[in-house]
Amino acid sequence: MSVTRIKVRGYHEDRFGHVNNARYLELLEEARWADFEARGVDVDFLKKHSLFPVVVHLAITYRRPASAGDTLAISVDVVRAGRRKIVLGQTATFDGSDDVCVEAELTVVFLDEATGRPVPLDDRFFRVWPELRSSDAPPA
Amino acid sequence: MSVTRIKVRGYHEDRFGHVNNARYLELLEEARWADFEARGVDVDFLKKHSLFPVVVHLAITYRRPASAGDTLAISVDVVRAGRRKIVLGQTATFDGSDDVCVEAELTVVFLDEATGRPVPLDDRFFRVWPELRSSDAPPA
Amino acid sequence: MSVTRIKVRGYHEDRFGHVNNARYLELLEEARWADFEARGVDVDFLKKHSLFPVVVHLAITYRRPASAGDTLAISVDVVRAGRRKIVLGQTATFDGSDDVCVEAELTVVFLDEATGRPVPLDDRFFRVWPELRSSDAPPA
Amino acid sequence: MSVTRIKVRGYHEDRFGHVNNARYLELLEEARWADFEARGVDVDFLKKHSLFPVVVHLAITYRRPASAGDTLAISVDVVRAGRRKIVLGQTATFDGSDDVCVEAELTVVFLDEATGRPVPLDDRFFRVWPELRSSDAPPA
Repeated sequence: MSVTRIKVRGYHEDRFGHVNNARYLELLEEARWADFEARGVDVDFLKKHSLFPVVVHLAITYRRPASAGDTLAISVDVVRAGRRKIVLGQTATFDGSDDVCVEAELTVVFLDEATGRPVPLDDRFFRVWPELRSSDAPPA
Repeated sequence: MSVTRIKVRGYHEDRFGHVNNARYLELLEEARWADFEARGVDVDFLKKHSLFPVVVHLAITYRRPASAGDTLAISVDVVRAGRRKIVLGQTATFDGSDDVCVEAELTVVFLDEATGRPVPLDDRFFRVWPELRSSDAPPA
Repeated sequence: MSVTRIKVRGYHEDRFGHVNNARYLELLEEARWADFEARGVDVDFLKKHSLFPVVVHLAITYRRPASAGDTLAISVDVVRAGRRKIVLGQTATFDGSDDVCVEAELTVVFLDEATGRPVPLDDRFFRVWPELRSSDAPPA
Repeated sequence: MSVTRIKVRGYHEDRFGHVNNARYLELLEEARWADFEARGVDVDFLKKHSLFPVVVHLAITYRRPASAGDTLAISVDVVRAGRRKIVLGQTATFDGSDDVCVEAELTVVFLDEATGRPVPLDDRFFRVWPELRSSDAPPA
């Protein structure tokens, strides 16, 4: 589990003074890249193995709107790992509180650049991300 | 049900040559505004009644990636209407085919600008959007 | 010269109820793609010749803010053509009036995908875009 | 002068594997907010004085493309201050080198929320941002 803090800016908001629903996905993605990178699943890893990550399913609940000046603390968690996919949970809370801004669950696969097909989660991943191997939860 | 056609551009894509997951939400939103506007639920309607629409929940499945040059045909459908919320279904297909690019289900409420609370779906809406009243589906 | 009409939406605006300066660049880019495509400089043309267009310089003046519900009429004009670059003028007016929203001048080059270097504007371009050849203006 | 470091992510890039020109404006804006905030010209300051900042002119030169994995060091500098406007210079270099990615000059005004007109740069600003007063350069 990791947490990334992002400050909400005026350009993140829409006309209603709230972060727009599409923009939240970018904030969540920013937190995922920070998380992946901290594990070693960074741009170099992806290039070396000719992989690119793709979100294939996403469910998000918007609980309380964020506005410019708020700092969101965005977590990334492995909910469960399957043979070829990872289900991640992400929660953005208002930093310094337990108040939830948005909650999301995403299914991510890694596509092989040559075939465009999802690759199995194998030793390349387990070396840097042991949690994917030890998943006790039922396979996704 | 309405369908809006949007041409995918280079600036919609990310480095993997696919439309990014956050960007799809903007394409879906564009189709919703076109749909709402065609019904009369446009900026003037919203201003007159001091309302603004908010997505409170969204689930999206990415089936096949779209690339620059593709035209997406994006539908908007009322799945069911509750007292204060509307569940919309949206499907983006590659124009001229039945191939699905993304499918989404969204729950939308209309907030009162003064209170920030969701308003009931009442005659103001039913006059322009009778489907909301006649919903036979179980209330959302 | 071509004109593309784009309706401004709530998700184009920022917290101040105006289209954000970064977002205007996307609206201008949308109009350029529509213009390029109408000439035959579309995704197929670019792929066939392994080219991609890049903006190397841009100057933009924001004259009057646009808001959701406005329709912008965005023109694309060749100001002058050089051996390897095109200077384009773009003006967004509020549709149905001469009121200017933004004015921009952009320098565009086409990079060769293999070398990453700007290619000369040659017969491939002149066939579909004769204006590039006949430029009487001093070369850019 | 301040410098903000931003890591370029996959979702910042377009199909050509480069940060898109519109996206650069967001990265520059992020650095401006960080700079303004560090001086005390933050969301609270703006709300207290019912102001909002607007870019009225911008010129940007794209020198070398940035890709996912690059870290940009983005500076913010006052080039000159006028009675009602500030000309800012921003340069994004590849962190740890002098290689310039983009260079921009922007003219910013602060609009009064009630009148929509630019306010004079007065003591409210000088207290937190003395550089605006002491500008020796010819007024913008």
